[in-house]
Amino acid sequence: MRVLGVDPGLTRCGVGVVDGEPGRVGRLVTVEVVRTDPDDELSLRLLALDEALSALIAEHQPQSVAVERVFAQHNVRTVMGTAQAGAVAILAAARAGLPVQTYTPSEVKAAVTGSGQADKAQVTTMVTRLLRLPAPPKPADAADALALAICHIWRGGTQAKIRAATLRTVGGSR
Amino acid sequence: MRVLGVDPGLTRCGVGVVDGEPGRVGRLVTVEVVRTDPDDELSLRLLALDEALSALIAEHQPQSVAVERVFAQHNVRTVMGTAQAGAVAILAAARAGLPVQTYTPSEVKAAVTGSGQADKAQVTTMVTRLLRLPAPPKPADAADALALAICHIWRGGTQAKIRAATLRTVGGSR
Repeated sequence: MRVLGVDPGLTRCGVGVVDGEPGRVGRLVTVEVVRTDPDDELSLRLLALDEALSALIAEHQPQSVAVERVFAQHNVRTVMGTAQAGAVAILAAARAGLPVQTYTPSEVKAAVTGSGQADKAQVTTMVTRLLRLPAPPKPADAADALALAICHIWRGGTQAKIRAATLRTVGGSR
Repeated sequence: MRVLGVDPGLTRCGVGVVDGEPGRVGRLVTVEVVRTDPDDELSLRLLALDEALSALIAEHQPQSVAVERVFAQHNVRTVMGTAQAGAVAILAAARAGLPVQTYTPSEVKAAVTGSGQADKAQVTTMVTRLLRLPAPPKPADAADALALAICHIWRGGTQAKIRAATLRTVGGSR
């Protein structure tokens, strides 16, 4: 199962691709931060982000995409840019025919650290450990994208297992 | 000058195409509301909106696109959907190679009614009058998209006139 995790942002958009299966050690495929210039027009920034994400999907062929869900409770300006970048990411995945799932920051933190209130350092430590990386992923803010991908693999796995177990039970009762 | 105006929304996205020149009566080319189903997944809704807007651009070949600028001061849920729909509209225009301009609601109201505090009925009345329509545009909430297109034609015209006047002055002083 290959998953693309996207931590949306207009100026810095974290992207990470992870191979993995629920309950197994994952493998880092690629991790990077897509940047767009704050001095450029919004339309050119969204276009650059769309092209970078579409190229990444074409190159690494993930089977699904996990995007962080955006809330409008913090800085208004930042949040609008994040919502716009998130929309571009979700659309790029949909246009490539890939299923998209969104997760809240606390769901992601809980998935990789066991606590929805974990701080950034704790998330980075666990991502480094779970993917057996020799050093924390760089750039540092790309760790969240990998955490999203790991969260999706584990959640997807849980759901798939429940589905499989249900099917077995149904099958056994026949 | 043919302009596509987009009043972004995830459930209802107003779109209107107007032909016009600054200081002249505009002509309505088309007006409609693109709807997506609130029960559908977000990725499918953004994809449906992208496809509808891209088809509209391909069919009517506008030369530029005006999109309402979104603020995060009102209902949080609605605003996130509006920001996402706006991003899809801006990206669709950019992918078609068209220049995009955003306007605040009060800029649009001021452009068509003379007051940035005008209400919806006043905007609809003026759009109907300015485009010499026999009746208010339907659906009713599509009037804002037409107001955006009219605002853009007039603003673009004003800017073009100032530029032309500046060039004449510069030329005359030589």
